[in-house]
Amino acid sequence: MQTTFTEILLNHGFSEQKAKTCATIFADNSLDGVYTHGVNRFPRFIKYIEDGHVLPDAEPVRESAIGCMEQWDGCLGPGPLNALRCTDRAMEIAGVQGMGCVAIANTNHWMRGGTYGWKAAHNGFVFIGWTNTTANMPTWGAVNSKLGNNPLVIAVPYQDEAIVLDMAMSQYSYGMLEFNQLKNQQLPVPGGFTTDGALTTDPGSILKSQRILPIGYWKGAGLSLLLDILATILSGGLSVAGISKQKAESGVSQVFIAIALSKLKNFATISSAITQILNDYHDSIPEKGSKILYPGEKVMSVRKENSTNGIPVLKSVWEEIQSL
Amino acid sequence: MQTTFTEILLNHGFSEQKAKTCATIFADNSLDGVYTHGVNRFPRFIKYIEDGHVLPDAEPVRESAIGCMEQWDGCLGPGPLNALRCTDRAMEIAGVQGMGCVAIANTNHWMRGGTYGWKAAHNGFVFIGWTNTTANMPTWGAVNSKLGNNPLVIAVPYQDEAIVLDMAMSQYSYGMLEFNQLKNQQLPVPGGFTTDGALTTDPGSILKSQRILPIGYWKGAGLSLLLDILATILSGGLSVAGISKQKAESGVSQVFIAIALSKLKNFATISSAITQILNDYHDSIPEKGSKILYPGEKVMSVRKENSTNGIPVLKSVWEEIQSL
Repeated sequence: MQTTFTEILLNHGFSEQKAKTCATIFADNSLDGVYTHGVNRFPRFIKYIEDGHVLPDAEPVRESAIGCMEQWDGCLGPGPLNALRCTDRAMEIAGVQGMGCVAIANTNHWMRGGTYGWKAAHNGFVFIGWTNTTANMPTWGAVNSKLGNNPLVIAVPYQDEAIVLDMAMSQYSYGMLEFNQLKNQQLPVPGGFTTDGALTTDPGSILKSQRILPIGYWKGAGLSLLLDILATILSGGLSVAGISKQKAESGVSQVFIAIALSKLKNFATISSAITQILNDYHDSIPEKGSKILYPGEKVMSVRKENSTNGIPVLKSVWEEIQSL
Repeated sequence: MQTTFTEILLNHGFSEQKAKTCATIFADNSLDGVYTHGVNRFPRFIKYIEDGHVLPDAEPVRESAIGCMEQWDGCLGPGPLNALRCTDRAMEIAGVQGMGCVAIANTNHWMRGGTYGWKAAHNGFVFIGWTNTTANMPTWGAVNSKLGNNPLVIAVPYQDEAIVLDMAMSQYSYGMLEFNQLKNQQLPVPGGFTTDGALTTDPGSILKSQRILPIGYWKGAGLSLLLDILATILSGGLSVAGISKQKAESGVSQVFIAIALSKLKNFATISSAITQILNDYHDSIPEKGSKILYPGEKVMSVRKENSTNGIPVLKSVWEEIQSL
């Protein structure tokens, strides 16, 4: 999969190094079971390059630096490459300053935010990062979309692995609604509204009304707004409103924060402190056979399974990719 | 109200300066309409002092400093005073480094997290802070409480005021459930489970099952867990599990992050960038007469109203306070 992606990217203006790195991110996201931002998304990524929304040879540029805080311009380069650069830079700053923050303007969709959380955590850093998006979610009490689903990622190193939360501010993505509709399946919890304004678990009704639900109703709506304001003002880039005025979702704003655990006075006991928290968490009494998992725990089991059995890919998706 | 609080605190071992500062926080929280963490909470705060959970003369101590990241020991001092000290210190660091982070162990309930967000924002800083708590919320798929509701605060300066999100990870507080039960009122959206494990809007059923709901179901549960892990490892203090082993909610862990907007290259245009975001947000089409407000907007109108008409206080609450 990585070789195929690399070849296609080389044919679309990527340098060898950049093609390899980008192909690895798309393949790793698929390996981890995040197909929506891996193999299934690859054709759309190529389309964005062909349409000129993503510039394959653009390099991000540092525009300002003060202490542990930097502002970068992504110059509309490939989102995953810009995000990786920002993650690396935030870790470099944190290695000196304890904590580092890089805010980037004019970048592109980072695909799966978890990529950067896993990367930082595998290197011993706490990671907090988020992106804004095009408007795709109404605020609480509204019928039209003025908020982005603005995914937030928080990652913590744990033993040789990590605990990684990677969550959008909407209860479900549109992709998940379509998936459930195709399978003729109700959602486990309400995911949006009917055209009459009633909360519903029916994916088809929500797709019709285009009123998806923020997590925690007014709370997730508020969090989404604040994440957008922060990404916009810290980077000096476009807001959700600004992005939404464009033809395509391009030129988004992102924030990357890294914290070097090795610099902390309690570094030696952090791993055992986390073990105690997770042990207590796993001691929860599950409801009728529910499995109590922490964020990232399922990803690790899918990664293991896909590493052994291969990555499942829809035939139609692979045929489309081979035609690129 | 401030004078009465000050007198009572002076009689409970507070120095004059500390009594005044703490009294101001409790009075300001009430002025802003957050009675649950203002006047209504004051008697319990005094009880915690009398029971030795909060030490009125304890001073927080810096234990480690590296670049923009510091770790403090709260020495079980009054939560609001420790939190104010950490907020001030995070702003001091940010004034030099662009961003500053203070994590504090062994502190106490900060009452209303928004206090510190408003403070930082009024001084021109972005604020991101959170606290852990005693276990009071089951994770998704569990029936017993292993998570805290771990309030998260994000604040941004705006014109002479601020945008302040102050949200716990539970959809409703127990206080809000009791309030609705007293008024014989159903909740506007599901807030927890019945003893049979069904989602419900009935506050009484949730109070009976003690199964309140995380915001966004599995999402808020994951966010709560990560906020606890971060507060614990960054401060070297107690986790939700550790706090819950004690008789009372004491010795909690908190994180305070400040970012100096004045250090950013785009400082001059930040206010207009936020205006554009809020204008677009307020342009949402409201559902049948809903009012579209941003986080903190209602607080400002309550503050204005209470400044004019006085702070409403229940007679029974004021009588209890006068007897302290």
